[in-house]
Amino acid sequence: MMKNNISYIDKVRENILDHLKTYQHSETIYNASKYSIEAGGKGLRPLLLFTALEALDTDIEKGISAASAIEMIHTYSLIHDDLPAMDNDDLRRGKPTNHIVFGEAAAILAGDNLLNESFNVIAKDKNLSAEVRIKLVETISNRSGQSGMISGQMLDIEAENRKTSLEELESIHAYKTGALIKAPVLSACIIAQAAPEISERLEKFSEVIGVLFQIKDDILDLEGNPELTGKNTGSDAKKGKVTYISELGLNGAKEALAKKVSEANSILNSLDELISTAGLRKIVQMFAERDQ
Amino acid sequence: MMKNNISYIDKVRENILDHLKTYQHSETIYNASKYSIEAGGKGLRPLLLFTALEALDTDIEKGISAASAIEMIHTYSLIHDDLPAMDNDDLRRGKPTNHIVFGEAAAILAGDNLLNESFNVIAKDKNLSAEVRIKLVETISNRSGQSGMISGQMLDIEAENRKTSLEELESIHAYKTGALIKAPVLSACIIAQAAPEISERLEKFSEVIGVLFQIKDDILDLEGNPELTGKNTGSDAKKGKVTYISELGLNGAKEALAKKVSEANSILNSLDELISTAGLRKIVQMFAERDQ
Repeated sequence: MMKNNISYIDKVRENILDHLKTYQHSETIYNASKYSIEAGGKGLRPLLLFTALEALDTDIEKGISAASAIEMIHTYSLIHDDLPAMDNDDLRRGKPTNHIVFGEAAAILAGDNLLNESFNVIAKDKNLSAEVRIKLVETISNRSGQSGMISGQMLDIEAENRKTSLEELESIHAYKTGALIKAPVLSACIIAQAAPEISERLEKFSEVIGVLFQIKDDILDLEGNPELTGKNTGSDAKKGKVTYISELGLNGAKEALAKKVSEANSILNSLDELISTAGLRKIVQMFAERDQ
Repeated sequence: MMKNNISYIDKVRENILDHLKTYQHSETIYNASKYSIEAGGKGLRPLLLFTALEALDTDIEKGISAASAIEMIHTYSLIHDDLPAMDNDDLRRGKPTNHIVFGEAAAILAGDNLLNESFNVIAKDKNLSAEVRIKLVETISNRSGQSGMISGQMLDIEAENRKTSLEELESIHAYKTGALIKAPVLSACIIAQAAPEISERLEKFSEVIGVLFQIKDDILDLEGNPELTGKNTGSDAKKGKVTYISELGLNGAKEALAKKVSEANSILNSLDELISTAGLRKIVQMFAERDQ
């Protein structure tokens, strides 16, 4: 079941590359956009969307355009984040970042392109009703824009090298990382037309695993294997970034992680009579135990 | 009538600013996005959309979200275009460019934000049916993305300081500038649910005035009053840009402009029995005779 969902991540990548290829008019824009999609991440956001659809007993196929859009948005945000004016990173997932390969102008435009085309991919998906498609555009753009990720990126930059409270840290992450982990869960609820009592609890669930994801990210930055994470160990500390580690210490962060795991599972317990939670439980485990 | 449409440009700006204010979570993102919207252009794209709606005998009010979206996309493209890695401009419309005021990181994110939120503005407009809204998202994102403006920006950068043919020049402009002049006309046709015979001819009309607009732009770069255009005279030539002037000379460019004016009007002649073309004729005149 879970394995099947993972194979769907490849379908998402194929769908994105097909789209980029079909509508190309500048070779550079095509190559630069393709490069970062192929550099590929773990596909956790598509996986989450498909697993939520499965939990809601809905055809996974219906989630491909929304999963593609969210993956494109995630990818564009990494391209722009890596730019010299932002995080100034030369490596991402062990490969040269987009602007290192294609230059800054192309990297800015390729990022713009992936954001722009993400909404086109949903809009043209004739397997979904107009109502579902426009609701997806509204919800995803809400999470990826100034109500979510983009504000989070700005707040994160502004918090660098300045003391923040744990509360502020959680708020920044809710915007920066959490919003795009919430988006696939909300998208699945829209596609499955889930009842409000279910979608409200799944939304809360997505908030909890968003925090869990970020705590694990911070732990991996300190403890992870650079060959797996594709990042140098301790890079957050070097940049003076406020993280769960800098605020709670390593043990404190691990305790916080365990607490979030149990919180996520208890929400799933409350959903057990309404939906099939097995896949979502595996997601919680995967988020908490991942090594990259 | 035309005057009324111009007052609608203010409504578009209000609508955008209301949206930015309501959903703000980062003061910097809000201020930077607002700055470039308020720096305001001539609002020609909204004006074109409203005038086309009026020609199609459809309530102008219905075009506010689409016009807002297109104006936001136009504005984001200028913010990113002005960045050091792109055109590296310090002044736009006589004011310091976004990155000069807010820094590069904020300018990149504010651009991303305006692009992202443009689709949210359409998606949340409950005055339009879901079918119309999703068709608007599809059509506008198609014109603003790799099938249109973004590819045009890349092609334009790559053509700098290299000899191009007039044919290639027209193709670059069709993507870079033309696509976002076509978008408001296509949007009006979608909102008005215009008959194919009408929308096809209006699409052709929009292509002609897109070229006309660009020729006039190139002429203004040479002959314009810097106080009105907000740009230094001859800046294209200084940058070694291929323009209608560099290809045809000033007189040749003026002849080409006159030819496009007559082409646009002859399309409108062919539409005279189907729609009210008076407003669109004034647009042609305004595009050709503008001094900024």
